[in-house]
Amino acid sequence: MKREEVFNFSAGPSVLPREALERAAAEILNYNGSGMSVMEMSHRSAFFQEIFDATKAKLKAALNVPDTHEILFLQGGASTQFSMIPLNLLESAEGIADYAVTGNFARIAMKEAKKYGDIRIAASSEADNFTYIPAQEELQLTPGAKYFYYCANNTIYGTEWSYVPETEAPLVCDMSSDILSRPVDVSKYGIVYAGAQKNMAPAGVTVVIIDKSLAGREMPITPLMLSYKTMIEKDSMYNTPPCWCIYMLGLTLDWLEKQGGVAGMEAIKHEKAKMIYDILDNSRLYKPHARVDSRSEMNITFRTGDADLDAQFAKEAQARGLMNLKGHRSVGGIRASLYNAQPMEGVKALADYMKEFEVKHHV
Amino acid sequence: MKREEVFNFSAGPSVLPREALERAAAEILNYNGSGMSVMEMSHRSAFFQEIFDATKAKLKAALNVPDTHEILFLQGGASTQFSMIPLNLLESAEGIADYAVTGNFARIAMKEAKKYGDIRIAASSEADNFTYIPAQEELQLTPGAKYFYYCANNTIYGTEWSYVPETEAPLVCDMSSDILSRPVDVSKYGIVYAGAQKNMAPAGVTVVIIDKSLAGREMPITPLMLSYKTMIEKDSMYNTPPCWCIYMLGLTLDWLEKQGGVAGMEAIKHEKAKMIYDILDNSRLYKPHARVDSRSEMNITFRTGDADLDAQFAKEAQARGLMNLKGHRSVGGIRASLYNAQPMEGVKALADYMKEFEVKHHV
Repeated sequence: MKREEVFNFSAGPSVLPREALERAAAEILNYNGSGMSVMEMSHRSAFFQEIFDATKAKLKAALNVPDTHEILFLQGGASTQFSMIPLNLLESAEGIADYAVTGNFARIAMKEAKKYGDIRIAASSEADNFTYIPAQEELQLTPGAKYFYYCANNTIYGTEWSYVPETEAPLVCDMSSDILSRPVDVSKYGIVYAGAQKNMAPAGVTVVIIDKSLAGREMPITPLMLSYKTMIEKDSMYNTPPCWCIYMLGLTLDWLEKQGGVAGMEAIKHEKAKMIYDILDNSRLYKPHARVDSRSEMNITFRTGDADLDAQFAKEAQARGLMNLKGHRSVGGIRASLYNAQPMEGVKALADYMKEFEVKHHV
Repeated sequence: MKREEVFNFSAGPSVLPREALERAAAEILNYNGSGMSVMEMSHRSAFFQEIFDATKAKLKAALNVPDTHEILFLQGGASTQFSMIPLNLLESAEGIADYAVTGNFARIAMKEAKKYGDIRIAASSEADNFTYIPAQEELQLTPGAKYFYYCANNTIYGTEWSYVPETEAPLVCDMSSDILSRPVDVSKYGIVYAGAQKNMAPAGVTVVIIDKSLAGREMPITPLMLSYKTMIEKDSMYNTPPCWCIYMLGLTLDWLEKQGGVAGMEAIKHEKAKMIYDILDNSRLYKPHARVDSRSEMNITFRTGDADLDAQFAKEAQARGLMNLKGHRSVGGIRASLYNAQPMEGVKALADYMKEFEVKHHV
């Protein structure tokens, strides 16, 4: 089976490790001699239970998750967490939570939480079109807040938190677009969660890592599938989980281990991002969107200053197999997503192309 | 790639059409010359949009869905619908709905709805261990009810509604375990929904077919991902949908069409179920669980009357490749799920085995 020479810079769903896909291809009709595809297996079967337990164990090892925390495999994407978090943590309509609004998804999460409680904006970079991440001293923290919410990496704007906020309230963090790209001290967090479709697996599973002491506080109106307590008690199998996505996550984690785990991945990430930021910093054509101290190493956003030229950049890139470089409509310009599974060759091909394009188009 | 000779009688997730799996295997690394797996594609890409639109069109054609209704591809399984339905249709805590409780999942749905409104039991076969489906004249319908809820087929008990209830209130039906196994007049329903993992696709996508005039009545507490209106407006892409499962559903629908669509499937279903029920009706060993007029053609439940012998039945079956015949713990005994993708050879192999086992064990 030939795979064309294509590099996929999509912000998500996005490129998966080639090795993981090849293993899935080899096993898709008959998993481990079962005579069944993983897609056909009862979630209560010994075969699937083994996949489930192994995947959980691999994730626990990869992120060094302490025993105080539980790993859940849920459905509904990050957007379902936007509701699940306040429903489970605010305790009542009087419950307070602090939100740092540093991008589109943090803003949606904040608006959704307002349905359920007293939500305060601890910081916002919206007035500056989300070009930066606020510093610790800029955070306005509310005493007695039930939690502090932030989004670690903003795919649309290309910014990323370089520090872990210090707060009295439990930290709740959306790591959808940079989980597994660097070590994380999970013990510092009340909840870490991530939709799978950037660094982990195909769309359809959401990983939630929750301090078990936070469970059991859901409001009475909480839908049964949106109770962390229920999901902890049932080990994510209150109902049928998204089995295939969990299986794929396991294959990605096998690959991750061979890259040296999250520490190895971080070193590779630095190298990949530097290759592109070095070009931006030495360019007379490209203008980066994010402030230098707030740069994301997962999603790099920039523009030429000429919308037509930006479009031409993405179009000519596609002709040579560099796919999905168009920026999000709310920022425009160009966006290159360098997720874990983006091969170094892809980043090199992009760097070469950027240099060529600049020579050709810089007046 | 060899696939062992195994027939999978699991109640779900369950067997998928061999042809669909083989096509998925062939395309998994490189879909249609894109150079990407469907698992890696942006849900906003032209490639995926085409898959999405085609799958929806195929489902619309297969079930003859009228233009008054919208087809949604959601996450969270049937269990999320248990909350989504009352949150969207009851309008207020005073809103009334009638529930027919004919099995485990209808009962859970009813209990969940009680969180949100005034829920009445229109009929229940619980006192008789869910062996039957109530007749039309047994249904106690509440004037002014916002909807009437029932579960078309009960996987655990092996019963199935053979008629469409006549009610003033809109019909809401969980068809998780018999959708696509027979023609349905969708125009008679307010909502038809089904988790995919029995007759459609791998676990992870829930199909909802909703009369658009019912949308927009959600209570203010409804989580954003649980609003039918939002999902209709965004064509199921408020956030990233479960792309791979939607793709697999499309492949199943291609296969279904070759079986003569739902009408063809119904004829095959009759033949398969008859093969097993004929044995039960002529047996001195096997005792069917369901009342004759309420029999399911998807899940056939029976027992020998001796729990050890039931266990032996399932165990010896497994040794000859007839997998997952053990009944659900709440009924015990034996359960054979004959979903659409269960090949006729599988049912014949089961029939032969049942006869042999009876000769060997009937005293």
